[in-house]
Amino acid sequence: MEHVAFILFDGFTVLDALGPAEILAALPEHFSLDYYSVNGGSVCGSTGMLLDTLPLDMLGPCDVLIVPGGYGTRALVDNRAFLQQLRTIAEQARWVLGICTGVALLARSGLLEGRHATSNKRAWEWVTSQGLRVEWIRRARWVTDDRFYTSSGVSAGMDMCLGFVADRLGMGQARAIADVLEYRWNPDPADDPFA
Amino acid sequence: MEHVAFILFDGFTVLDALGPAEILAALPEHFSLDYYSVNGGSVCGSTGMLLDTLPLDMLGPCDVLIVPGGYGTRALVDNRAFLQQLRTIAEQARWVLGICTGVALLARSGLLEGRHATSNKRAWEWVTSQGLRVEWIRRARWVTDDRFYTSSGVSAGMDMCLGFVADRLGMGQARAIADVLEYRWNPDPADDPFA
Repeated sequence: MEHVAFILFDGFTVLDALGPAEILAALPEHFSLDYYSVNGGSVCGSTGMLLDTLPLDMLGPCDVLIVPGGYGTRALVDNRAFLQQLRTIAEQARWVLGICTGVALLARSGLLEGRHATSNKRAWEWVTSQGLRVEWIRRARWVTDDRFYTSSGVSAGMDMCLGFVADRLGMGQARAIADVLEYRWNPDPADDPFA
Repeated sequence: MEHVAFILFDGFTVLDALGPAEILAALPEHFSLDYYSVNGGSVCGSTGMLLDTLPLDMLGPCDVLIVPGGYGTRALVDNRAFLQQLRTIAEQARWVLGICTGVALLARSGLLEGRHATSNKRAWEWVTSQGLRVEWIRRARWVTDDRFYTSSGVSAGMDMCLGFVADRLGMGQARAIADVLEYRWNPDPADDPFA
C-alpha cells in the first residue's frame, strides 16, 4: 500500500487535486489517500467547498506527493517556511506530481532545478518566472523527469495521473480506470492542444 | 445570480460532483454553489475526503439542483424520506442535473417518469431497474429532457455540464471554460464511446 499525500491550501483548484484523487482511489489496494494543509482543518477550494485536512506537521515520508494549483499559489510562492517544508517533504517522497500552477510551488522551492517540467499555458509567464533554472517545455500535456511529474492546466492532471498509473502498474490498468470513470484519456503526453 | 445546490451523501463519487462544480465555479458572476446533505456536516466522498455540507432542511427553492452518483446511492434508493425530500426540492428547481448513478435517485423518486434519461453503463441494469417508466437511452453521453439533464458515468458529467452552460449561455462560453480548464470537451451528447 502506497501513501498518497495531497497538499491543499485556500484557493486550490478543486479539479487539479480531486481528478487525480478519483483516479488513484479507483485502486484502493494500491493507494491510500490523505489531505494536508499547513495548519490542518478546513481548506476552501475553488468551488467554494470546505474540505477537511490534516496538519502538514503530521505528514511523514510519503510515497506519492501531489501538489495542485490555483489562485492560492500566488501567495504561497512568497511563503519561505512553506516552501522549505514542501521541499523537505518532496525530497523524502518517492514520486512528486505537480499540477497546473502547483508546479510553480515546486519550481520556487528549487526542487525542479535542472529538470524538465511544464505547467498551465494561461499562467505560463508567471509559473516559469518561479524557476529560472528549470527546463520548461511549453508544448506538453505532461512531462516526466525521473520521479517528478508535472502537468499543464487542471484537466491535464487527470491525463498525467493516468500516465503515472500506466508507468507504475501498466497501460491496461490505466485504461481500465479510464473506462470505469468513462473518461476519454489522452495517453500521449506530447499531444497538447492548449499550448 | 443563480443558486446551484449539490446534494451529497457518504459514498458519493467526488468527480461526479466536483467536475461540474469546477465548471460552474468558472462563472462566479452567474452561479453561486452550495453543498448539502440530509443532516449536514461532514460527508465522506469516494476519495476518502471529508467535505462540509449544509443540512438539506436549509435548502429552499434553488435554480440548479445537482445529484452525483456513487456507492452511497445503493442505500439511498430505499430511503423513502430522502426520496420524498429530493422530489420536493427537484420539483421546485428550475433545472435538475443527475450524474452517473445519481440518476437512479431521480428515477426512484419518480421525477423521470415518461422522460428520456441515461446513466452509467457499468451500472445500467441496476439504475434502469429504479425507474421502469423512464425512457432510458443507452447510447448517450448525456440526455436533455425539458429541465432534466442526465449523464453517463463520472466524467460524462463534465461534458454534460458544459452542454448545460452552452444551452444557457452559449457555445462560446462553454468552450471558453473548457479552454481555461484545458479540458477536451466532447460537445456531442450522442457521441458515447462507453455505451
